[in-house]
Amino acid sequence: MVIVMERTATEEQIQKVVEALVEVGYDVHRSTGASHTVLGAVGSPRRPVDPRALELFAGVREVVKISEPYKLVGRTFKAADSVVDVAGVKVGGSEVVVIAGPCSVESREQTLETARAVLAAGATILRGGAFKPRSSPYNFRGLGVAGLDILEEARAETGLAIVTEVLTPGDVEAVARVADCLQIGARNMQNYSLLDEVGDQPKPVLLKRGMSATIEEFLLSAEYVLARGNRNVILCERGIRTFEKYTRNTFDVNAIPLLKRLTHLPVIGDPSHGTGKWYLVAPVALAAVAAGADGLIIEVHQSPDHALSDGFQSLTFDNFAALVGRAGAVAQAVGRGVPDTARL
Amino acid sequence: MVIVMERTATEEQIQKVVEALVEVGYDVHRSTGASHTVLGAVGSPRRPVDPRALELFAGVREVVKISEPYKLVGRTFKAADSVVDVAGVKVGGSEVVVIAGPCSVESREQTLETARAVLAAGATILRGGAFKPRSSPYNFRGLGVAGLDILEEARAETGLAIVTEVLTPGDVEAVARVADCLQIGARNMQNYSLLDEVGDQPKPVLLKRGMSATIEEFLLSAEYVLARGNRNVILCERGIRTFEKYTRNTFDVNAIPLLKRLTHLPVIGDPSHGTGKWYLVAPVALAAVAAGADGLIIEVHQSPDHALSDGFQSLTFDNFAALVGRAGAVAQAVGRGVPDTARL
Amino acid sequence: MVIVMERTATEEQIQKVVEALVEVGYDVHRSTGASHTVLGAVGSPRRPVDPRALELFAGVREVVKISEPYKLVGRTFKAADSVVDVAGVKVGGSEVVVIAGPCSVESREQTLETARAVLAAGATILRGGAFKPRSSPYNFRGLGVAGLDILEEARAETGLAIVTEVLTPGDVEAVARVADCLQIGARNMQNYSLLDEVGDQPKPVLLKRGMSATIEEFLLSAEYVLARGNRNVILCERGIRTFEKYTRNTFDVNAIPLLKRLTHLPVIGDPSHGTGKWYLVAPVALAAVAAGADGLIIEVHQSPDHALSDGFQSLTFDNFAALVGRAGAVAQAVGRGVPDTARL
Amino acid sequence: MVIVMERTATEEQIQKVVEALVEVGYDVHRSTGASHTVLGAVGSPRRPVDPRALELFAGVREVVKISEPYKLVGRTFKAADSVVDVAGVKVGGSEVVVIAGPCSVESREQTLETARAVLAAGATILRGGAFKPRSSPYNFRGLGVAGLDILEEARAETGLAIVTEVLTPGDVEAVARVADCLQIGARNMQNYSLLDEVGDQPKPVLLKRGMSATIEEFLLSAEYVLARGNRNVILCERGIRTFEKYTRNTFDVNAIPLLKRLTHLPVIGDPSHGTGKWYLVAPVALAAVAAGADGLIIEVHQSPDHALSDGFQSLTFDNFAALVGRAGAVAQAVGRGVPDTARL
Repeated sequence: MVIVMERTATEEQIQKVVEALVEVGYDVHRSTGASHTVLGAVGSPRRPVDPRALELFAGVREVVKISEPYKLVGRTFKAADSVVDVAGVKVGGSEVVVIAGPCSVESREQTLETARAVLAAGATILRGGAFKPRSSPYNFRGLGVAGLDILEEARAETGLAIVTEVLTPGDVEAVARVADCLQIGARNMQNYSLLDEVGDQPKPVLLKRGMSATIEEFLLSAEYVLARGNRNVILCERGIRTFEKYTRNTFDVNAIPLLKRLTHLPVIGDPSHGTGKWYLVAPVALAAVAAGADGLIIEVHQSPDHALSDGFQSLTFDNFAALVGRAGAVAQAVGRGVPDTARL
Repeated sequence: MVIVMERTATEEQIQKVVEALVEVGYDVHRSTGASHTVLGAVGSPRRPVDPRALELFAGVREVVKISEPYKLVGRTFKAADSVVDVAGVKVGGSEVVVIAGPCSVESREQTLETARAVLAAGATILRGGAFKPRSSPYNFRGLGVAGLDILEEARAETGLAIVTEVLTPGDVEAVARVADCLQIGARNMQNYSLLDEVGDQPKPVLLKRGMSATIEEFLLSAEYVLARGNRNVILCERGIRTFEKYTRNTFDVNAIPLLKRLTHLPVIGDPSHGTGKWYLVAPVALAAVAAGADGLIIEVHQSPDHALSDGFQSLTFDNFAALVGRAGAVAQAVGRGVPDTARL
Repeated sequence: MVIVMERTATEEQIQKVVEALVEVGYDVHRSTGASHTVLGAVGSPRRPVDPRALELFAGVREVVKISEPYKLVGRTFKAADSVVDVAGVKVGGSEVVVIAGPCSVESREQTLETARAVLAAGATILRGGAFKPRSSPYNFRGLGVAGLDILEEARAETGLAIVTEVLTPGDVEAVARVADCLQIGARNMQNYSLLDEVGDQPKPVLLKRGMSATIEEFLLSAEYVLARGNRNVILCERGIRTFEKYTRNTFDVNAIPLLKRLTHLPVIGDPSHGTGKWYLVAPVALAAVAAGADGLIIEVHQSPDHALSDGFQSLTFDNFAALVGRAGAVAQAVGRGVPDTARL
Repeated sequence: MVIVMERTATEEQIQKVVEALVEVGYDVHRSTGASHTVLGAVGSPRRPVDPRALELFAGVREVVKISEPYKLVGRTFKAADSVVDVAGVKVGGSEVVVIAGPCSVESREQTLETARAVLAAGATILRGGAFKPRSSPYNFRGLGVAGLDILEEARAETGLAIVTEVLTPGDVEAVARVADCLQIGARNMQNYSLLDEVGDQPKPVLLKRGMSATIEEFLLSAEYVLARGNRNVILCERGIRTFEKYTRNTFDVNAIPLLKRLTHLPVIGDPSHGTGKWYLVAPVALAAVAAGADGLIIEVHQSPDHALSDGFQSLTFDNFAALVGRAGAVAQAVGRGVPDTARL
C-alpha cells in the first residue's frame, strides 16, 4: 500500500499514519519529496486493511493498494497453465474445446437431437440448463431434476461430457451427481455461499464473469472456489453491460488475453450471451479463438427460427457446424490444435 | 409487442409471423404503411414469448415489447403508496425514515454504543451486518449468529427496529427470527432462490438495487418477493457502477423519482455505498431526500478516523447527528414530515 | 509517481528505472520491502512523463500517478470559492442562480414569451440555443445568427443575462458579441481548439461535462480555458451515459459535492439533460440544490405538450414557476440564499 | 414510429395523438387490443419529430421509433461493400489493410525509421499525429505543420500512403494538402463543424468511434460526411469506455460484424487505443481480423521500452512484424487475402 500525503500535511499527521500502519504489522518506508511525502507500507499485517480506511486520516491525499488480493489463481502462485479435466476433455491445453447445446433443456427429444448434432459438428461437451435463472418470476425456470435426467441420458448416448448450471447451495449435491462440470452463472458470480459450496466438492466449475464485474473481482470469485480446495475452475467471458443498446452485452475480448496473463486457469468465451444476436455469434466466436481463448461455449437450437423460445442468440445445427470448421482454421492460424471428436 | 417488418419483407414472410403469433394466443393487428408494415401483438398468450425470438423470422426488422413484465409492484396494479411497517416504524408514509448503524457488527460495545448514538440523533431503525458479503475470501465475513445476538440486545436496550442482511436461503429462518427487516444486498438482487425464500416468510424485505441493474430488473426482483406473497418490500437505491473512478459508485438520483412513479413500494437511498466517500455522504443524503426518498440508510461508526476498518464511507456520531438535522429541514422544504424519535 | 516493482524484479531492472527517472529530472526515493520494492518519483521533471510509459520497463508491476494534472482550477491553487459574474448575476456566491429558457431559439415570439415567463418565475439568466449540435445531419441545427439577434432582443426587454452555446472556434467572436456567457456543450468538452478560443476572450464560459467524462477530465478541460487567461468558468453536471435505458442520462449527483471539494469554480446542475424526462426534472433539480449546486439550468417551453418539438424534457411555465419556489425552500434548508429577481 | 397508449387512455386522448401525427404528415394506423391501443405512424412527415415529444401527450405510455435515422451509410441505401481508395490502397476489399506508425510525429529520424520498418513488415499506410488532442493543456500537442512536412518526406521515401488527424475546421485545408486520408479522432466524432468541413473536400476520412458513442451515433456522424458529398469514409472501432479499470478502453469486437451488417462502409480496428496495453495489442488485433475487420491501425515505436513517451500501447518493430505475419494467417483462415506490399 502506498499512502500519498497532502502537500500541506504536518509532521504530526504523517506520524499518526505511520503509527497506525506499524500497529497492525506493516513495515513503513518513507519518501520525502519537494511537494509530497509518500509512505510505502509493505509486509504482511496481522489483519487485512482496506486502503480506503486510511483516507480518513487527516493529511492523507490518496491511498493506493499494490498487492493483488488474489493468490491461488495468480500466475505468481502457479506459472504454468492449468488444464482442467472435464470427464476426459482437457480444457486449457493445446486444443480449443467447443461446448455447445441448447439454452434450456426443454424436452428429451430436443436435447438428444441437439446433442447428436453438436457431437457430429465437433463439440466435446454438452451444455443445457435444467435450472434457469430468469429476470421475471413469471418466466419458465427450467425442468429442474427432470432436466438433469435428460442430460444424463444424452451423455449415455453420445459420450459428451455435461456442463449445467447450479443456482443455489442446496442444489449443488444433486447437480454434481449428474454433471461433469458445474456452471456458476453471471448473476451468481458473487454468490459466496454458492462459491463456497462448489469449492467444497470435486467436480470442475465453469465460472461466468458477472455482467459488470471487473477482472479483479472475477479472479477473486474464482479464488473463493480454489480457497476451498477445488482447483478445477474454468473462467468464462460472456460479455459485460455497457451503454450500447444494439447488442445485449459487449463481449470483452480484451479480457481473454488479460486473464491468460494474470491467471493460470483456462479461459473460454461465450459469444451467445456476449452478443445476444445469432448473427454476431460466429464472428465473435472466431475473435475469441484468435485472442487466445481455450474454448467456446455456444447455444445451439434445432430450429431457432421456428420455435418462439430463446432462439434469438442460438445457432442452427448448420450454422454451428460451419462455425466449428472456421474456428478450427483460426485456431490453427494462432498455433492451437483443432477440436477432435474421434476419441468420443 | 410490436413487430416492425423490413421494407423488403414479402407477404409470405409477414404471414409467417402473423401465424406464429396467433398460434401462441396473441391477437394481431396489422398496419400497412408506405415503407414498413407494422404488426401489433396484443392479448394474453398461452406462454410467454421473448420478443427477441421473433427477430429470427425472415423479414423482421425490429421487435419492441410493450407490456411491462412486472405486475404486482406496478402503480397499474396498486395506485396508492404502500407503507411498510418495520416493527412499528412506517416506511413510505409522510415521514422520512432514517436507518443507521455500523457497516459490520464488530463487537457488543461498538454496536450498543452506535445504537445509542443513532437513536439520540433521530434514527428509528438500526442497521448492522452480521453476515457480510466480501469480494475476497480472505476478508472478515462477519460474526454470523453471534452478531444477530448483539443486534437483538441493541434492540432490547434502545427500542430501535433491526435490519440486517441475509446472504443465502439456508440462513433466512435464523435471520428472520431476530431481524425486523431482512436486507437483500446488491450482489444478491438476482439471487432468485433467496428472493423466493424471503418471499415465503412475513418479515419486511429491504431490497438493494444491483450495481448494474436496470430499473426494470430491479422491479422484477421485487416482483419475485411479492409473487410469493410478501408485499412488504422496501426498495433501496445504492449507487450504480459507471466509468467514474473517483467515487466507489454513482448514486443514481434519477432512480428515486422514477421508482416512485412506477411502483407503489417505498424507496430509500443509501448514500454511504452510493458514494463510498464519507465526505460525500451528507450532501448526497440531502439530495436523496429532496428527490423524494422515503428514507435513508447510513453507515455510522464511532471513530472512523481511528479504526482501520470500513470507516471510509461511515459518518462519525457528530456528523451523523448534524446530517439528520439538515435532512429534516430538507424534508420539510419538500413537504415531508421530519423523523420523530419521541415514540421510542 | 509511485512505481511498484515486481516481486521478482532484479537489482539491475530497478536501477534502469531509477536512472530513467533521474534522467528526466525526478528525485527518486526507494523503499525496499519483504515482497516489493517501491520507488517514489517526486519533483518537477523537465518534461511530462506518462506513468503508463514506465509500465514498459522490465520488472515494473504497476505505476501510480499522484500529482493532480490540473493546477489553476484546483483548491490547492485557490482555496476560496470563485464567483463568476455574468452581466451582474453572481454565480458561485451565497445565492442559487436559476438559468432557464427554451432548448432552441425557434422564433421571436416563443423566445420573448419564454423570457418573460422565466423572469417572472425567478430566473436571472436566459438560456436558448441559436447554434445546435444534432446527432443527425438531417435535424434542425438552429437559427444561427438570427437566433442571436432574438436573444439580444429578449435581453433588452427583460434584463435577463444571456447564455448560449458556441460550437466551433470560427463562431466564438460572433457569439461573444451578443452572449453574456458562452456555453461549451457536452459533445465539445474535449474540443481543445474551441476551449483555447473561449479561453482567449473575456466573456464567462459555462462548460458542460462530457457524457462520459471523468471528473478529472472535466477539470482538465476547464484548465484549458483558465490556462489561456479566462478564469470565469462555470462547471455544469448534465448527466453521464450509463447502461440505464429508462432515462436519457444518469444525473451524477455525487459530482456536485465532489467538484465543490476539488475546485474553486462554481458548479451548477442541468436536470433537463440529466434526466431527459420532464417529470424527473423537478425532483432532480431539488436534489442538485440539496447537494450544494450553485445554480440550475433548466429547459422551459411554453407548451411542451402541444408542439412536436424537444418538449420531452422541458417544463411548462407553471411547472417551472412551482419548481423555482420549491428550489428556494430547499436552498434555504441547506443554508443558501434564494434567487431574487427584484434587482432586474 | 409506434405509440403505445396506456391501458387507461381515453378515446379523446387517443384522438389527440392521432390528430397531432396527421397534422405533421404521418399516416396513422390503429390497433385496438384487449389491454392497449397501439398507433403506428408511417410515411414521410413534413418535419422530423422526436419520438420523445409524443411522450408528453396524456395517455401515452411509450413511443418507439422504427426508421433508422441514417440513410446514405446504410445497407438499405447501398447493399454492396464500399471500397475506399487511399492513394491506391484499397480499404474494404478482399485484403486486410495494415495502417501503422508512431503515435506522434516526434522527429524526422523517428518517423522515417518507423516508416521503413512498418513498410518492411507489411503496412501499406503510415499513421502519425502532427496535431495531437491531449486531455491536459500542459502536454505536448504535436509538431503541427512541421509534422506534416515530415510525413510528406516519409511518403516520398517509402511510397506509403499517409493518414493523420485533423482537429479543427481551420486546419482541414492544410492537412488535406499533405494527407492521403484525414483522421477524425474519437473526441471529435460529434464535432459537427469538423465533420461538415471534411465532408466538403474529397480526401478519404478515417472516422474513429467516440469513446461512449452508440453504433447509431457513430453511423450518424459518418452520415454527416456523406451528406456533404464525401462518400470515402472508413469507420474505426477503437474501444469504448466501461467500468473496467485494468484496460484503458474495452475494445468492442461486437461492433465489427454489427457495423459490417448495417453499413457498406469499410470497418477497421484500432487495438492500440482499444486496449491501452502493448501486451494486449497483438491478440486483440487478431481478434478484430477474425471478426471481419477490413484493416488494422496500430501504433509502432522504435523503442517503446526506452523512451519515456507514449510507448505503453505501442509495439516494437519486431513485435509488429510478428503480428502482421499472424494477422495474415488469421485473415486467410477467415477467407480474406493477406496484405501485400510488393506493389509499393
